This record gives sequence, C-alpha cells and structure tokens, in this order.
Amino acid sequence: MRAPNRPVYGYPPPMPTRRELANVLRVLAMDAVQQANSGHPGAPMGMADIAEVLWHDFLKHNPANPRWWDRDRFILSNGHASMLLYGLLNLTGYPLGMDEIRNFRQLGSRCAGHPEHDLSIGIETTTGPLGQGVANGVGFALAEKLLAAQFNQPEMPIVDHHTWVFCGDGCLMEGISHEACSLAGTLKLGKLIMFYDDNGISIDGEVRGWFADDTPKRFEAYGWHVQTIDGLDDAAIARAIRAAQAEGERPSLINCKTIIGWGAPTKAGTAATHGEALGVEEVAGARKKLGWTAPPFEVPSELRAAWNHEKAGRAAEARWQQLFGRYRNAHPALATEFERRMRAELPANWPDTARAALAAGQAVTASQATRQSSQAMLNLIGPALPELFGGSADLTPSNNTLFKGARVVTPQDVEGDYLHYGVREFGMSAAMTGIALHGGFIPYGGTFLTFSDYARNALRMASLMHQRVILVYTHDSIGLGEDGPTHQPIEQLNSLRLIPNLTLWRPADATETAVAWRAAIEHDTGPTLVVLTRQGVPQQARDAAALAAVSRGGYVLADCQGVPQCIVIATGSEVSIAREAVQRVQAAGKRVRLVSMPCTEFFDAQDAAYRESVLPAAVTARVAVEAGTTGLWWRYVGTGGRVIGIDHYGASGKGAEVMKKFGFTADNVERAIHESMQGSER
Amino acid sequence: MRAPNRPVYGYPPPMPTRRELANVLRVLAMDAVQQANSGHPGAPMGMADIAEVLWHDFLKHNPANPRWWDRDRFILSNGHASMLLYGLLNLTGYPLGMDEIRNFRQLGSRCAGHPEHDLSIGIETTTGPLGQGVANGVGFALAEKLLAAQFNQPEMPIVDHHTWVFCGDGCLMEGISHEACSLAGTLKLGKLIMFYDDNGISIDGEVRGWFADDTPKRFEAYGWHVQTIDGLDDAAIARAIRAAQAEGERPSLINCKTIIGWGAPTKAGTAATHGEALGVEEVAGARKKLGWTAPPFEVPSELRAAWNHEKAGRAAEARWQQLFGRYRNAHPALATEFERRMRAELPANWPDTARAALAAGQAVTASQATRQSSQAMLNLIGPALPELFGGSADLTPSNNTLFKGARVVTPQDVEGDYLHYGVREFGMSAAMTGIALHGGFIPYGGTFLTFSDYARNALRMASLMHQRVILVYTHDSIGLGEDGPTHQPIEQLNSLRLIPNLTLWRPADATETAVAWRAAIEHDTGPTLVVLTRQGVPQQARDAAALAAVSRGGYVLADCQGVPQCIVIATGSEVSIAREAVQRVQAAGKRVRLVSMPCTEFFDAQDAAYRESVLPAAVTARVAVEAGTTGLWWRYVGTGGRVIGIDHYGASGKGAEVMKKFGFTADNVERAIHESMQGSER
Repeated sequence: MRAPNRPVYGYPPPMPTRRELANVLRVLAMDAVQQANSGHPGAPMGMADIAEVLWHDFLKHNPANPRWWDRDRFILSNGHASMLLYGLLNLTGYPLGMDEIRNFRQLGSRCAGHPEHDLSIGIETTTGPLGQGVANGVGFALAEKLLAAQFNQPEMPIVDHHTWVFCGDGCLMEGISHEACSLAGTLKLGKLIMFYDDNGISIDGEVRGWFADDTPKRFEAYGWHVQTIDGLDDAAIARAIRAAQAEGERPSLINCKTIIGWGAPTKAGTAATHGEALGVEEVAGARKKLGWTAPPFEVPSELRAAWNHEKAGRAAEARWQQLFGRYRNAHPALATEFERRMRAELPANWPDTARAALAAGQAVTASQATRQSSQAMLNLIGPALPELFGGSADLTPSNNTLFKGARVVTPQDVEGDYLHYGVREFGMSAAMTGIALHGGFIPYGGTFLTFSDYARNALRMASLMHQRVILVYTHDSIGLGEDGPTHQPIEQLNSLRLIPNLTLWRPADATETAVAWRAAIEHDTGPTLVVLTRQGVPQQARDAAALAAVSRGGYVLADCQGVPQCIVIATGSEVSIAREAVQRVQAAGKRVRLVSMPCTEFFDAQDAAYRESVLPAAVTARVAVEAGTTGLWWRYVGTGGRVIGIDHYGASGKGAEVMKKFGFTADNVERAIHESMQGSER
Repeated sequence: MRAPNRPVYGYPPPMPTRRELANVLRVLAMDAVQQANSGHPGAPMGMADIAEVLWHDFLKHNPANPRWWDRDRFILSNGHASMLLYGLLNLTGYPLGMDEIRNFRQLGSRCAGHPEHDLSIGIETTTGPLGQGVANGVGFALAEKLLAAQFNQPEMPIVDHHTWVFCGDGCLMEGISHEACSLAGTLKLGKLIMFYDDNGISIDGEVRGWFADDTPKRFEAYGWHVQTIDGLDDAAIARAIRAAQAEGERPSLINCKTIIGWGAPTKAGTAATHGEALGVEEVAGARKKLGWTAPPFEVPSELRAAWNHEKAGRAAEARWQQLFGRYRNAHPALATEFERRMRAELPANWPDTARAALAAGQAVTASQATRQSSQAMLNLIGPALPELFGGSADLTPSNNTLFKGARVVTPQDVEGDYLHYGVREFGMSAAMTGIALHGGFIPYGGTFLTFSDYARNALRMASLMHQRVILVYTHDSIGLGEDGPTHQPIEQLNSLRLIPNLTLWRPADATETAVAWRAAIEHDTGPTLVVLTRQGVPQQARDAAALAAVSRGGYVLADCQGVPQCIVIATGSEVSIAREAVQRVQAAGKRVRLVSMPCTEFFDAQDAAYRESVLPAAVTARVAVEAGTTGLWWRYVGTGGRVIGIDHYGASGKGAEVMKKFGFTADNVERAIHESMQGSER
C-alpha cells in the first residue's frame, strides 16, 4: 500500500482523493466477484488508479451519448477485468445501473463475464480472448487516422480522438499483439495509447518463468514511444498520459508497474486474486485496508458525485457539435458525406453500381478464375464506395484485392483506401473488426483460404459482434495445385460455415461473384467470406429466374422437365463439373436437376416454400459436389445420398491433375448420380 | 554481385570456390522452378551462401542415416524456398535423386511445392504456413535440452546437437514467431540458431511499408544473442555461426542481409523473384552472370564431389556410435531406456498402467468434472511414462494438467516433465509438434477448447505429419457458465472433427476419460484431443460389454429389449441428460437405445458390422444430443432425425442455468425422442 488511506465518511465530507475514487472501482470489483463467486478481481484492483486518472482527466466521452462519433475509444483488452469497465461506466453515468452490477455474471445481466459489445452502455468491443482487444485497438486508431485524413479541414479537426487500450501479460504473450503492434508502429498510429498492466502475474503464477521479455525494448523495436511508470501513482500516470498525448507520431506504450489485487491484505501480488473471488475474509480485510465502510454496491454520494461525468461529457460533445456546425457551413458536401459514412448508409447510387457490376459479371464469356472476377468487381465498386477499405495479408497479387485506382496507405501518407497488412492474418482480421466497430468504413482483406485458420478466432469475434467485415479468401481448394497440402484447403469451407452468424459465399463464376460481392456489401449484421478459385472456371448460362435467385444462396441452375429423379448440388469450381455430368445424364433421358449453392447460410434462411421448391423432399436421390470435406453435406443429401468431397489432405501437382486424382471429374459425378438413383429406387 | 565469378570448367578443374558451390543451389532452384513454371526461386538464390556454409562446415548429419538420433535438425521455416532444401539433400547425398528435382511440384514427386515431413530423405518437418517452422524449431531445441538433461552423463553427451532454422520476413511478421521466440529466450535454448533472410522483400513488395521492426532489437528483448551480417559473405557467415555456437546460454539470431533472387541479372532484389519462375531470358542471364555453363539438372562432377557429405556423415555418426557404446557400458539401464524413448516404444508395463488407470476411473462414484477425472488419470500415468511431457498455455489450475509429482521446467532447471508455456496457444501447439518430431517424448498441453481457434493450423500441421501430440481442451461447452460467449465453445467440437487425421475424444465420465487417455497415448499416427468439462458430470453405469466397447469410439451404453424404436446418441456431459430421458421413455414402455459416442473418428473406423450393430440402418428414429453445433450430426441421425445442439452463441450465467436455457434438458431430449418416433412412424 503506497498511499495513505483515510475514511471517506465524515462531516463535512472532504474532497475525495484520487486514491479514494480509485478504491470505488476496487471495492465494486471485489464485491461483485464475491457475490457471483466467479470472476477476476485482481486486474481491476491493480489497474484502478490508471483507470481513474484516465477516465477522470483525459478520456473524451459523453455518457449521455455513447455513440458520439468523435468520442475517444476505450478498449479493455484484458476483458476478464470486466468489472473495472462496468464500474467505470456506472460511475461516470452510462445507463448501466447498480442492479446490473449486482447481477454480475448472472443470466440476463448486461454485466456479463467478459464485456460484450454494446454501444448503448459504452462497450466498444467484446473482449476476453487475449490479445484481440489490442488488435481491435490498432484498427480503431487506424480508422481514426484514415478518417481524419479524409475529412478534417484546416482548423476543423472533426475527427480527432484517441484510442486507449488496457492490456495485461496475457495479451502481450499472444502472437497477435506482435502482429498488431508491429503494424501500428510502422503506420505511426500516434493517437493509440496502450497501458500495460505489468504486474508480473498470470494464471500459472509469476510470469518470469515463462515470459521474460524486456517489453519496453520490444515495443521500442516496433517504433513505439515507451514509458515505464508506477501504475499506482496517480501523478506519474497523469504525467505519462500527457507525454503520450504530446507524442504525435509514435503509438505509446505506458508500461505500468502494478500489483495484482492491490488492496487485498494477504493475496495482493499473487495469482490467487486473478480468477476467483477473494473470499469473505479477504474482502473484509480489503475493506479495512482501503478504509471502506459502505456496504456492498453502495457508493457514497460524494464519491459518486466526483465520479459523475455527465455534465462534462455533454459539454465536450457540445463543443464538438459546434465545431461540426462550422464544418457543415464551410464544407456542406463533406459534412453530408461524413454523416453518411458514420451512419453506415450506402451511397444513394449503390443499387446502380451493384447492377452495373452484375451486368459486367454476366458479360464475361471466357473462362476466368473467380479471384479475377472478384478483381473486376472491385474495380467497379471500389471507386463507387469511398467507405470501402481494402487490403491483404501480403498476398495482394494473388488475392487480386487491389482495385484499379485504389490508393495505398503508407507510413508517410495515410490518405488511401488500401493497406498492405503484411503477413499477419490474425492481426489483420482483428484490426478490420476494429475498423468496422469504429465506423466510417467497410473493411475487406485477403489471404489464402487455408490461412483463415490463423485468424479463426477473429472471425468468430466479428461474428459474435455482428460486424460487417469482408474476407476475400482465394485459392479455395486442392485446385490451387502445386503449392500442395499445406496450402490446399480441405476442412476450411465446412468448418467456417459452422461459425454462427458468419456468411460464406463460394461463387461458381463471374455472375455469382458479382452477387456475392453485393451481398457482402449489403449484409451489415455479420462478416462475409468471399471464397474464390485460383484456377479458371467456365461461365454458367442461366435464365432470368436463375439469375434472380442467385442471391437466395441456392437455386436451380439447370432443370429438367417434370419431377427430378435426382438433384445434384454443387458449389464454386465444382459447378461446371457437375453441370457436365448432369447434361450427360439428361442426354441419356434421365430427369436430373442441378442446384448451385454458393451460400448455404442464405439458402437456409429462405422460407420453407422456396427451399422445398429447390430441394423437394420427395426427391431423395441426391448428390453434393464440393472440393472440401463431406461433413456438412449429409444434411442436404440425406443418409441415402452421395457426397463427392475430400476428407483427407491434397497433394502437390498441377491443379487440374490434382482435381482429377481426387475424383472431381464429370465421370465421377455421373457415376454418383446413377448410384444415387439406383439407391433411391430400391 | 559482390564476389568474382569464374568458369567452373577447365582442366585440371580448380577446387570450387564456396560461391561456386552455393551457385549450384541457385541454379537448381531457378531451373526447377522454371521447368515447373511454378515455385519460389528468390529465397533459395538469396540464402544459398548461408546454406552452403552451414551444411558444408557445421551441420552434423549423415545422409546415409537421416534418422540418426543425435543429428542436427535443420528446419526451413520459409518452406516456399523448398528447392533450397531439395538441392541440399540431393547434393549432400540423401536418397533424393535428380529425377525427383526434375519433377519438382509435379504429382508424385517427393519434391513437393513445400517440404513434406519425410525422414527417409531428411525432411524434418513440413513447412509452408509461415512462422510455424520457427515454433517447431523451438520444440526441437527444447526436446534436445530436456533429453540431454535426462540422459547425458559426465563426459558422455549422447544428446548434443543443434537446431538450425531458416526463416524469412513472413515468418517474423507472423505472431507465432513472437510466442515461440519469447519462450525460447526465456528458456535459454542456447543450441537453437536461427538465420533470418533479411532481404527486405515480401510478396507485396518492399517490406518497409508494412514491417518496420528493428528485428535485432526485438530479439534482444527476448533475451537472444543477435548478430547482423552480410548473408552473401561466406566468411562472415562462418564467423557468425561459430559465435552462435560459442554462445552457450542464449538462442541465436543471425540477421542475414541478403538480396532476394541474387544472381538474377535484372530481377534480383525485387518481389518478381519471390513466387514465380524467372522466365527463360532471365534464367539465361543468370547462368551467364553466375558463370554457369552446365545444362539444367546437371551438376559438374567436381562440384558434386565437393558437396558430397556421405563419407564425412558416416564418420560423424560412427564417432557418436562409439560414444554411445561407451555410454551403454557405463550406464546400461539408461542406454536401454534412451533407445526405448527414441524408438517411441511404450514401457513394457504400460498395459498394466492403463488397466490400473481404467480401474481407478471405474471406481469413481461421485459426480466429477471430466477435467478432474483427467487429472486423476494423469496422476497415475504421468509417473509411469517418463516420455510424457506436459504443459498448459497458462491455464494449469483450470486444465488440471499438472500431475502429482511432475517436475516443472524452469529457465534455471530444464530437467522436468511439465512446462508453463504461457498464454501462447499457437506457439505451444507448434512447439509440441516439434517435440514430437524430435523424438523421445509424448507431449501434451492444455488450454480452453475455445482457444483451439488460436492454434488451429498447428493442429492441422500435426495431423498432416501424423504426429502424436495430445491437446487437453477443458471448458468444452456452454456448460462452463459465467465466462460467457467468448469462452463458450459452440462450433469448435464439429469444426475440429473436420480436420483430417485428427482424433477428438469427448468423454462422458471418469471411465470414458480413462479410455480416452489410453487411446491418446497409444494412437501414434496423429494428434488426439481430449475434450473435457469444467462442470461435474455423474458416473455412468455400464456392463462388461459396454465397458469393452468404449474404445471403439461409439457403443451401446443403455439398451432396450428387442429392436429399438428410437436411438439416442450423446457425447460428454450430455450423456447423463440423454440417459435420464431414455430411462423415462423406457419406463413409459418404449424401446429406446442410448449410444455414447465419445469419439466419432474411432467409431467411423470400425467395421460395418459393428457400426450396424450399434446404429442399425432400420432404426430411422434417431436423436443426437451434443452441446455444440448440429452440423455433423445429420450424418448419424439422417434427414428425418432430430439433433439437439446449439447453432448460436451462448450466454454468461451459471452453467446449469445456461444449459437449461438453451435446451440441454432431459425434458427436451424426451420430447425429441417422441417427435422422432412419430416422424418415423409416418
């Protein structure tokens, strides 16, 4: 205990000290965890002074309007310290009542175990999976810098806010912290300020046994501005924040030496405070040590008054509104565009753009890799959608993600719409989520489909938060050829489809690619994956009904007269193989229907009548064809159906030879059609 | 071009220079890529001098016996530079003929696009997904250090070899490089020496626009020994290697300034040499520039002679065999044990140990979390299996992975059998694969099931290489409760099952946990995941037949008289819920069978007769129950069946309440049984 404590009651009440204000956070955290008998008191108790100084003196926010566009963004990357954030939100005046805190970690409480994205109460992003808040923060800070470059005018900095990140040892051990912080240093995100809770303790104990990094030196190597301070000393914290804000160019790391569970009389400084309730006795001891006499969940009024930020917050936003008013007068078109962007409304002419893109897709006649079709789409929609912000994890020429006329962001010039993210799939994906959460952008980024593995939990987090991020995954099957099994996706298609609230499109040709891109842009309640071939695929003929139905995710691409004897379902590059087989069997007088299924999620979301019209229950002879695992297709073909897929690893060789070797041929599909018809006739 | 070139022909042939030897690698790489019209010439051409010096003067290996236990391990983490490795293997005398190199990247060639683990030709690990070779290398070096501590005796260092890693910009941008290298520095893996191909170029161009790290400083922050040299200067390379070897304590980074595609007359130093053939003209120009007159795939005899390492390799191994002979004389029991470990033979008494563990599992009567059952198993098998090397990604007290009597490895004392890997799921998993590849160990490591997402591609690589690594994934469903949706697995169970050659066990109680652990230890052709509950589950009664059948992965746990009217399939914590429902329906006079399916992979691998005996095709009324996505279960229940699962995210609350909220109740299973029976009667 480095600071004197004195009782907070007494008449007249003295002005609360900073330490007393911080202690409110400590007591709320330990009491809520104790009541739930579940949670993490240690980090909130160790970081309370930092939080108090930041939120009281520096954070630009308005509890009455958590959506204020120019607010500072605060991210608790060590999300297990959730009670710290709930305490801050409650105390400063967000609509998060003490009843919610009393119900911490109970079903229905907004005070969930880990913070869950909810702007109505000021939670900027969902955290808990370590390191990802840091990468989200890099995305937030990048979005701010990009948007400022695009919209700010002399004397009118309408975009001018900081991104503040709290993180712990776990975040900095995770690899994603390297990817994100290396990128942030390179891009000189000077308004990103991160506080490292350097308490030397993680769940397994004292970290020096497994994490001996010189972290300040590591961040200097990334080009960051680094300070090391006593994280329990409010004056030092304030000084460090001022220095970090004064540093215009480099992102800042404030390395805060703290004591986990500070205030707990016997457990402070130990892993015992990390992830469980302190226990009744230890809580009582902490109350005594902190000089706290109020009962659980009661905050003395003078402390509450000192914490409240509603008036200051309103004033802060009012100043900005005044600025924005002047901006609107001076630059009306820009102001309108800024509002459109921040409201996430597509441009008025977007439907025209989308139609033109579709027409362009339909006009393609030659065989073309869908990654090239995608490039052509981007060339059309990129210039028409200023909010589109692209990139690739160092596979730009392979992913075909750089559209014609796109301007590349560099460390020297941030006014652009494309970023070379480097070989950092996870960091890119989580940063993209941060960009989407910030607002003003629709981010897309490319890599090979196989390397979605590297970024998987970022996709999950974007899905959980319903964020519009678009991943362009090329090289989508063994058809990629020579790079071999390490690069050939097998399980990825189906395993990505399993992520709730994520949409995967695997178009068969340029037309379906156009539809996929339109769906990706318009689908604003979750991530979309646009999954594309490396190799050329033929263009599919389709009638008006088929064309209109592509956007339903699954549709009849080629039909027969009368009730089909068999239905073939195919996706992506396998549609053309399936079509050839279907044509042969039709030519032999059999009634076979071909269904193209570029997006199972959209198809499943159609009404029952439509689904029945495409896949009539009465037709049980069915064949699914996809160059990926068979697992999920049994649901569509039934136990008696056939699935032509691949449930083992691929091989290095010419793409066409590899496809043939593993059975993706019209001959094989034809055989399966006959087998399934025989099976269902039995 | 920094060194003079002179023709390599002439009589009498002069002794080849080092540069001339290196140029063989360059020419082979550019010619093979040109012939395949696919591949990566740039990195082999840039790193050829480093490779030549290392393999010629330092690498301890015997091309005639690529399995020699005390060989140095060489890892090409930048696996796209595969032609460099193939050239080295061919030239030094491994059984990798020039015909294979001629067929580089063609179906059936052992010279695949990326190196594929194959000890018969000296390929230590499969690489390509960037950064993972680095983490494999950390595992190799750790295994060497552990094994040396366990077996070496004074004057008899039978385990004494280096781990050499080549890596590029991509590897060092990837987050896993941070996780692995931070751990390696902490653990003082002094015999790990890494060469960084610092050529400033990645696929998107000059890396300074997206990767501005001061990499030497970064590695100093990890506690590494760091040198920066001209990677085209053989003398500097040799000096740096000697200094790295002299450094006993810290791992070494040799930061090699190189030029990508060195030797190509117009494209050297540019991204154009990275990932495609140079083109006929450029290849011709390079031949001229390098003074190379031999036709493609022909190596002049004096160069081949100078490269050949067969004699020196045999001599090196013979010296070791002599040492090992003395060791055997002095320490016969240790020598026998060392041989057993390196041959990956389980101890003779292992079946007894496994039987005792099973008996202990059966003896449990009280409700118990399967993570606790697993801890009890580990307490029994850990001390009996010296090759078992455990750990956790900083969740030891939650994963219950530290067995009684285990000795923890520390930076100061490496003689142990448990490692705190830190919050580094990906690094841990890939390092474990390296440990398994090295030989002498069966590694296991724990984290929460959800965070398998972070390590997914490492699981894939271990599966692709058929390595025995065991992942202990606790907190396996929404039943974990308060930590909420970020921590509650939903899609993970099914998405992991999709990875080819990976085995997932989700035991229902202590008995099934014992069987799962035995299977994990004995399954030596791929990774096993042992997936465990956080919450308590009741113990299941089973007869002798059921007990004997657990190891088949799926079996009849509770049967009815006669042909079942309905079959219920359940896994893990849902087995007890399903059993309660089955008992109720049976009590109401219906014939219902309960199948426990802890391991779908093992069940699927049974013969058709066994599978039919458990799931008779005639019984179409089926219900599957698992607290995960429904996706894969349709294959087992058919289109008309029912699946009780969860296809959306969970919620923070008490585990039992969350399970109930989302329908994992006996009532709900009972309802589904009735529905499915009605459905199939129609």
